Amino acid sequence: MFEEFLNNQDSWLNGRGPSAEIVFSSRIRLARNFDEYPFTSRAASQQREAILQKISGLYPKVRRLKKSLFISMEKVSDLDKQFLLERHLVSQEHISTLKGKGLIVSGDENVAIMVNEEDHLRMQVIMSGFNLEGCWEILDEIDDELSKMVSFAFGASLGYLTACPTNVGTGLRASCMLHLPALVLTKRINKILELLAKVSFTTRGLFGEGTQALGNFFQISNQVSLGLSERELIENLSGVVNQLVSQEIDARNTLLKKYKISTEDNVWRALGILRSSRLISTSEALNHLSLLSLGLDLGIIKGTCVFGSKQTRELLNSLFILIQPAHLQKIEGKALKEEERDYIRAAILREKLRDGRE
Amino acid sequence: MFEEFLNNQDSWLNGRGPSAEIVFSSRIRLARNFDEYPFTSRAASQQREAILQKISGLYPKVRRLKKSLFISMEKVSDLDKQFLLERHLVSQEHISTLKGKGLIVSGDENVAIMVNEEDHLRMQVIMSGFNLEGCWEILDEIDDELSKMVSFAFGASLGYLTACPTNVGTGLRASCMLHLPALVLTKRINKILELLAKVSFTTRGLFGEGTQALGNFFQISNQVSLGLSERELIENLSGVVNQLVSQEIDARNTLLKKYKISTEDNVWRALGILRSSRLISTSEALNHLSLLSLGLDLGIIKGTCVFGSKQTRELLNSLFILIQPAHLQKIEGKALKEEERDYIRAAILREKLRDGRE
Repeated sequence: MFEEFLNNQDSWLNGRGPSAEIVFSSRIRLARNFDEYPFTSRAASQQREAILQKISGLYPKVRRLKKSLFISMEKVSDLDKQFLLERHLVSQEHISTLKGKGLIVSGDENVAIMVNEEDHLRMQVIMSGFNLEGCWEILDEIDDELSKMVSFAFGASLGYLTACPTNVGTGLRASCMLHLPALVLTKRINKILELLAKVSFTTRGLFGEGTQALGNFFQISNQVSLGLSERELIENLSGVVNQLVSQEIDARNTLLKKYKISTEDNVWRALGILRSSRLISTSEALNHLSLLSLGLDLGIIKGTCVFGSKQTRELLNSLFILIQPAHLQKIEGKALKEEERDYIRAAILREKLRDGRE
Repeated sequence: MFEEFLNNQDSWLNGRGPSAEIVFSSRIRLARNFDEYPFTSRAASQQREAILQKISGLYPKVRRLKKSLFISMEKVSDLDKQFLLERHLVSQEHISTLKGKGLIVSGDENVAIMVNEEDHLRMQVIMSGFNLEGCWEILDEIDDELSKMVSFAFGASLGYLTACPTNVGTGLRASCMLHLPALVLTKRINKILELLAKVSFTTRGLFGEGTQALGNFFQISNQVSLGLSERELIENLSGVVNQLVSQEIDARNTLLKKYKISTEDNVWRALGILRSSRLISTSEALNHLSLLSLGLDLGIIKGTCVFGSKQTRELLNSLFILIQPAHLQKIEGKALKEEERDYIRAAILREKLRDGRE
């Protein structure tokens, strides 16, 4: 299952979007509930099944979703659940054992709808680079089309009703995954994260809570979705992301001006280890790939030296995901123990990052 | 001063001696005092000067020392003092500021006599590999020739008299510098060091006390020189060294059998870092060189891959010393701050260890 995703050239991982050297990806999701059923956590097993049935009949009528996959989560293997999580197509909560869960995912993986997660529908659009507008355009269209076919739970004063109060209103959460190695290396990041929390933005890591700073990735999202319009929420996040991008650029200039040699040392060591290790964990690999990515952005390492003539940004971005545990197992086509994964991860990295001159 | 030593092909660093893959070097020294003067620490300034004069007149008559350098330590710059220390030609004590100190050193650096260190004469022979017999043959000849010309302090019951009681008797200390990375990696080393201490052997690091385990080097020497003949002391040490060599070989086999992949990982990472770093400290470099050396011994890395067609053992052994702070400054011909040294050390290592295919 999902093997075709491994070679998906059009996915949000292609590294081709705007500002893709700092903004890894952009994502917007809407929480929606059918007004005729209780929220998922309060729905009986049969009701959850009915919700799943309902959306399975609706999605093929939505223009953007015509050719999407519809999957009952009960039929997904543990490995594939992890695989979907690594591709950011489902949440951790969605791969728990609760019955009646489903997933609708477009062939290019840009659109994914979780059915019976916390809300009946969690609809997301995820795109490469800094492209919240692009995400919203698609998501708004899908939401409009669905709204014409069904009645979503909506209160005149509150707006869309959701299982958790933080999502009430627009039901919208927008986020950007930012790669901020220079802010980490210059030790400016903590002050910035504190400031963001004060102005109601949430920071998470590459794979949600508890993974912060892994590979120097920070997912920034709005904390509340009430009291502002969808456009305003997106614009607010865009403003914050723009500021973070310029602060990261500033930190990168500082690295080049004040810490040139130690930055070169960090970058070249990262490449040296990626090219030579025989066992490497996901987190260590992510951190080295982050530094390698920084080195390419700063011109310390030439892309052709690392990847030959190929498109470096695209390949590098894909590596951040390819080396994840479930991805390795999908690539190998079998379950692997941790040490086996560390071995294969190292082999793949050596192969992908081998000397361009060879 | 001493620039010629940098290209000394015949020195004890050439890595060509017996068992040189584990026994880096062998050394024997004799402590001797002229009976007509008080021990150095009790001698007046004029007396120390007289001792220095006396040996300066004697050494050219000794066959092995005819072409040696005679140096007054007062005329040696701080950098050169450190350089001599790094080449194991003087002790830390000998480069303190006390006046009247001298050094006689043969052109191949195998023989070195410190004058007015703790004893009037500290005569050492140091050779590459496991070759205590070779050291003793030369040192015994020098001692014999000198004994015919002068009268050394000697007590009928105690033997040779020395400033410190631990040297009384033969005045002999024999030592071997062992490279024991596998005993360190398999965590067997501590038990072995405890055992050695119990049977009166002293363990130090590459540069004397306090440097233990740096680069996985251990200097093993006899603790007392009284009650046994020179031959017996040397044979005792040889026995211990032989045991350590076979334990290290056993540990290396264990690494290959039980920890093959993680050992390969350790070795290749070490080479990867040595080939890519832009700043590297002495101790980090020593530890990586140690692993690289192990990797060559175990056949994990082919010598031709690292050094082209050159003699790998010789080059690798020389690197352990070449990257030391004073050596770097001698090579560059000027004083260097710590960060400058780290930068040049990294550049030299990249150059020396560059891909053999290039």
